[in-house]
Amino acid sequence: MTLASSPLGLHRVVEPPGVLPQAAWRLDPSPEIAADEVRIRVDRLNLDAASYRQLREAHGGDSDKVRAAVLDIVATRGKMQNPVTGSGGMLTGTVDAVGPASPLGLTPGQRVATLVSLTLTPLVITDGLARWDGESEQVPCDGTAILFARSIAAVLPDDLRPELALAVMDVCGAPALTQRVVAGHTPAPGPVVAVLGAAGKSGSLSAAAARAAAAARVIGVVPHEGEAALLREAQGLVDAVVIADARDPVVLADAVVAAGGPADVTVVCVDAPGCEGGAILGTKQGGTVIFFSMATSFSGAALGAEGMAADVTMLIGNGYVPGHANLALQLVRENTAVRALFERRLG
Amino acid sequence: MTLASSPLGLHRVVEPPGVLPQAAWRLDPSPEIAADEVRIRVDRLNLDAASYRQLREAHGGDSDKVRAAVLDIVATRGKMQNPVTGSGGMLTGTVDAVGPASPLGLTPGQRVATLVSLTLTPLVITDGLARWDGESEQVPCDGTAILFARSIAAVLPDDLRPELALAVMDVCGAPALTQRVVAGHTPAPGPVVAVLGAAGKSGSLSAAAARAAAAARVIGVVPHEGEAALLREAQGLVDAVVIADARDPVVLADAVVAAGGPADVTVVCVDAPGCEGGAILGTKQGGTVIFFSMATSFSGAALGAEGMAADVTMLIGNGYVPGHANLALQLVRENTAVRALFERRLG
Repeated sequence: MTLASSPLGLHRVVEPPGVLPQAAWRLDPSPEIAADEVRIRVDRLNLDAASYRQLREAHGGDSDKVRAAVLDIVATRGKMQNPVTGSGGMLTGTVDAVGPASPLGLTPGQRVATLVSLTLTPLVITDGLARWDGESEQVPCDGTAILFARSIAAVLPDDLRPELALAVMDVCGAPALTQRVVAGHTPAPGPVVAVLGAAGKSGSLSAAAARAAAAARVIGVVPHEGEAALLREAQGLVDAVVIADARDPVVLADAVVAAGGPADVTVVCVDAPGCEGGAILGTKQGGTVIFFSMATSFSGAALGAEGMAADVTMLIGNGYVPGHANLALQLVRENTAVRALFERRLG
Repeated sequence: MTLASSPLGLHRVVEPPGVLPQAAWRLDPSPEIAADEVRIRVDRLNLDAASYRQLREAHGGDSDKVRAAVLDIVATRGKMQNPVTGSGGMLTGTVDAVGPASPLGLTPGQRVATLVSLTLTPLVITDGLARWDGESEQVPCDGTAILFARSIAAVLPDDLRPELALAVMDVCGAPALTQRVVAGHTPAPGPVVAVLGAAGKSGSLSAAAARAAAAARVIGVVPHEGEAALLREAQGLVDAVVIADARDPVVLADAVVAAGGPADVTVVCVDAPGCEGGAILGTKQGGTVIFFSMATSFSGAALGAEGMAADVTMLIGNGYVPGHANLALQLVRENTAVRALFERRLG
């Protein structure tokens, strides 16, 4: 490919012209790379759960039809983006070729996972998905994918099994941003941090990141006794375990205060709608709320804070922070409590 | 009223018990005040535009029925919260009684506007809305309203006409947060600030706030030549006027860069969906985006930043910042360009 390349991949957009690759209907997935691109030899796709479920249901659970549908999407669109759900997933593979101007720091032969969505990744499948039975969102395959200068990929570590590493990388933005906010807190001795959904994947990593960034106190909030037991077993991860419904502002705030709050920093990792008010109310005036849940309502947060005259800084949890994958992997290596929680959830 | 009061007004919640006043079906609007409350003698309600439109349409434009509907809502719920739209509005009136423990700093006789929504303000109407013709969302009335310790009210200034003061107060959170972010920017000489929707009410005030907080450069983005002309007439408000569709990320970012960007701080005041990508792409790595538009999609912002590997801090525009009303009124007093823009829009 000799055309001028764009770090965002605009040169790969075929239809409609001018949009970002994620918004495009069709990308050019040719395996030839531009000077700032990287080619990956793909060995596995991890389809987004919502996308896989939609495909199964649309085809009455017929695995052959599901396989044909995925092949058709990739052939038509030049990427694996389910046209109904709009979602993609991630992939793993081996670095195959690195353009001389690529800033990603990758070397041929490295095993990597992409941390940008399949919805913007040019993809060719070359084996007809012959090794996939269509029964799971894990899709073994052969093919090629392209990374742009501003794509993100992480080298899979040798010392962690791939399933664990992928699960960690999938949520690595949360601990990275938590670490940044907690470490940037003034004055000493470090903030009181409340993590809503602390026994989950992003929640437990965020709690570990807060601890590593010298939080004065970490309060883990969970919805019921089962999750509380998991969190108590994860010794040292949090200083206090609180059982409360994060959707009930008054109950949640009272429980956080009773456990040593209100929080200077509240991290929302609960995948249920309606947690904005409680997160705001459980946070000190002048404090910060970081929303990582995709169930967060923008207007719920904005109007909720205004209605309570709450002077809190509210952050939209950005999934990208430089160094996020390595930070999260390191937390799992060093924090046996978090690692045990993850291993339990992976089964 | 002798019951123990809560700064959030929980003691006024009748049904269902335990929720915040905004979420309540019914409040106790009794005029007797607790020690930390304030009573307002109401002279006007400003119904939320969406609420008024719904009431007009539901009653076929019959003004008597609209009036009866508002009276019924307030009598039933103890607050003016349209059960269909969920929205309220604001009110003006005169401070009537101040509890000895009220922290709001109000004095009987002051004319004030409430800056918390009617959806959480206990209200009694005593004149049957006899002076309202039902033809406008401006509702002259007689009655009483209650402010809690954490409510917000602003004294109406003597030197600005009430319509102008109310319009300014309605959007005063945007300039206040913009001012805080711009003033907190390091290192010198101050950030490049891009304001999307700079000719609008919240946009022009935010541009003025950025200027007052020593932004190095203010770039005003507007959708078409008509708005651009307004902005050019507002001399000194911005350093560059850019015409671009904020919903087209690539076009917007290129235009901002050509005007002296990318921005260190981007302020989104465009009330249209789909502006997240452009705002992120037009912002420097390490910069900040402040979303004030209620049309902002939380997931659009979070996934958009991740997909572009954009390390930007994304803030949910909190409508409450201490001192916001006074800051905004002062900007309008001192900045003749902003004042002229507002006066034009008020007609």
